[in-house]
Amino acid sequence: MVDGARRTTRRIRYVVAASLDGFIAGPNGEADWILIDPELDFDGFNSRFDTILMGRRTYEAMKAAGGGSSMPGMEVFVLFRTFQQEDHREVTIHDDPERLVAELRSQPGKDVWLFGGGSLFRSLAQRGLVDTVEVAVIPVLPGDGVPVLPPPSTRITLALTGHKIYAKTGTVALEYVVQDRRRTRPRRT
Amino acid sequence: MVDGARRTTRRIRYVVAASLDGFIAGPNGEADWILIDPELDFDGFNSRFDTILMGRRTYEAMKAAGGGSSMPGMEVFVLFRTFQQEDHREVTIHDDPERLVAELRSQPGKDVWLFGGGSLFRSLAQRGLVDTVEVAVIPVLPGDGVPVLPPPSTRITLALTGHKIYAKTGTVALEYVVQDRRRTRPRRT
Repeated sequence: MVDGARRTTRRIRYVVAASLDGFIAGPNGEADWILIDPELDFDGFNSRFDTILMGRRTYEAMKAAGGGSSMPGMEVFVLFRTFQQEDHREVTIHDDPERLVAELRSQPGKDVWLFGGGSLFRSLAQRGLVDTVEVAVIPVLPGDGVPVLPPPSTRITLALTGHKIYAKTGTVALEYVVQDRRRTRPRRT
Repeated sequence: MVDGARRTTRRIRYVVAASLDGFIAGPNGEADWILIDPELDFDGFNSRFDTILMGRRTYEAMKAAGGGSSMPGMEVFVLFRTFQQEDHREVTIHDDPERLVAELRSQPGKDVWLFGGGSLFRSLAQRGLVDTVEVAVIPVLPGDGVPVLPPPSTRITLALTGHKIYAKTGTVALEYVVQDRRRTRPRRT
């Protein structure tokens, strides 16, 4: 369970679907093995979040897939190394993940969905800025692809806080709280 | 559930502990993040098997760790590309995994524990010779290491058949049956 003190602050939650061998997409970004379980409560899930963070590659993969990246009821932030807001009007471009997270935490609101990919998760986790890791484990072994946590990374220790089995697809949703925060959290401004 | 027909034959079961990101050991073979849950029923587990298969690297890692590779009540087979029985008296060296599995299946006995590593699993799975994949998911993200299924591999589709949560360590044991057998099973001799 997340402790009460942290609950008063918006949490940064890395929520992804991954294969049993730890890939969030195929070698070319494909996600054709992601199963959408009919029991999945999307509305309930979405109602816990009002903000999405994603890295540039994930954003570009979503755009390339034709889905766009505006999501109803969500403010979407995309992390670029270089600032180029003018080309991307439906999202907010940001170039400093640490500062962005500090800003989000300092504001009231729902939790923040760290949408991916693995590089942005790694970057934030190594700064101690990720609260939970929530993986829907898909029953497949692609053997290669985009890792849930790409190397080089320091080890991240987790504590299991919840699980749910989706019997129709064999998806196993696992919820963890990040245990070892390598750096102190940034102070609220 | 495994179908009744297959149950009459000894099953080849890939049973491993892995991190949430799909590694069965660290980059240098280390397994220091493997948690042994006090609730784990080792005797019950071991009683289902009488034979162990492992690859050369796994065997050498066990020897290097000082554990030896004789296991009470188990016949241990190690797959080498070249035959060198004389150096390894406590195990049986074999150089043809496909023929060995056909031989084991043709004999009465308990199930066969495919102990690892990932390369032997891949080799057997691509020949349609692995019945189940049973992963104890450890709550850690090392970010690198020895993969549960190393590339290059064809995709392996699974069906969830069981799960167990070990609350003390947060280990999640997941059991799957392999779905897509890429090649026909070898005939019994």
